Amino acid sequence: MVEPPSLEKLISEFESLPGIGHKTARRLAYHILSRPRERVAAFSESLLAAADNVKTCSLCHVYTESDPCPICSSRAGTKVICVVEKSSDILPFENAGIYRGLYHVLGGVLSPLDGVGPEALYIPQLVDRIKKEGVTEIIFALGSSPEADSTAMLIDRLLGDAPVRRTRLARGIPMGSELEFIDEVTMLRAFESRTAL
Amino acid sequence: MVEPPSLEKLISEFESLPGIGHKTARRLAYHILSRPRERVAAFSESLLAAADNVKTCSLCHVYTESDPCPICSSRAGTKVICVVEKSSDILPFENAGIYRGLYHVLGGVLSPLDGVGPEALYIPQLVDRIKKEGVTEIIFALGSSPEADSTAMLIDRLLGDAPVRRTRLARGIPMGSELEFIDEVTMLRAFESRTAL
Repeated sequence: MVEPPSLEKLISEFESLPGIGHKTARRLAYHILSRPRERVAAFSESLLAAADNVKTCSLCHVYTESDPCPICSSRAGTKVICVVEKSSDILPFENAGIYRGLYHVLGGVLSPLDGVGPEALYIPQLVDRIKKEGVTEIIFALGSSPEADSTAMLIDRLLGDAPVRRTRLARGIPMGSELEFIDEVTMLRAFESRTAL
Repeated sequence: MVEPPSLEKLISEFESLPGIGHKTARRLAYHILSRPRERVAAFSESLLAAADNVKTCSLCHVYTESDPCPICSSRAGTKVICVVEKSSDILPFENAGIYRGLYHVLGGVLSPLDGVGPEALYIPQLVDRIKKEGVTEIIFALGSSPEADSTAMLIDRLLGDAPVRRTRLARGIPMGSELEFIDEVTMLRAFESRTAL
């Protein structure tokens, strides 16, 4: 290659990121070279700072710098838990400002083919929290794959006849979409769950 | 925001890169958090290493870790210089393996509206090199904008009647393209410059 070794190394680091191809990685690396050193140092430090400072909350497993996380601390005692797959899934709830309960990150959904069984997820911890804290409702916000459905079903079974309401997000037509482009499964669910005007 | 400060900072660093929007930046930052610390440290170090080790060659101004650059050193005495706008423009030449001459990076093209005059580019240095080293041909590889054309014309004028052949890359139909989608200017140039079978 023509590129000096440090530049080649930087290109391959960018290329290792998800969704970044070789040409984009090259463009980004050349862009970095055009920046003043202190700007590059700030980027470099922010990577390490994120790796060093961001942990997962020992209660709900969302990314946080304090433990328990700000949500678990400020909403302690709330009896509703929203169950999500990964930490970033809580953003649409928090940004919409519609929900003031607790969360629980599972760290994935059941996927027997990939070897992800219940023991690889934070499912026992969730069942513990629900029983110990007298939770009255859990809301499954796990996406709409068959794996997500069987994950919710497993948790439902593990809870047995504990007095906990179990709900999941409504499925239907998203805002702003054109009816003619709605897929059949979404249409089926929206039709079945139609509501009175 | 819901995100911890270090994560938010990392997202904004990614977002400051060209062509990276907020959602992509968020995806990349969350991906970084999922990596082992030593992988993140390697990325962090590669940024600083690139900023610290990569300089521009004092002769031709391409990015390099040694000065003069490997190309200027190994091809010293060659009497042909290929003039490009930026360092990454030498890649297609080197990758095609068709050219074994020297390069000269201008650092841009003339752009009076953006305040880029001849003094902001490495034009005097180019004229110096050509005269001092008895260069016999310069090849303009500057893209096909009007700014690129006037940059080449200015250099041509500065060289006056020095015995230097001045050429530029052929313009025409690129390989693999469908004729019906060729723009009119390209078609005009390809037609005017048609060659005997």
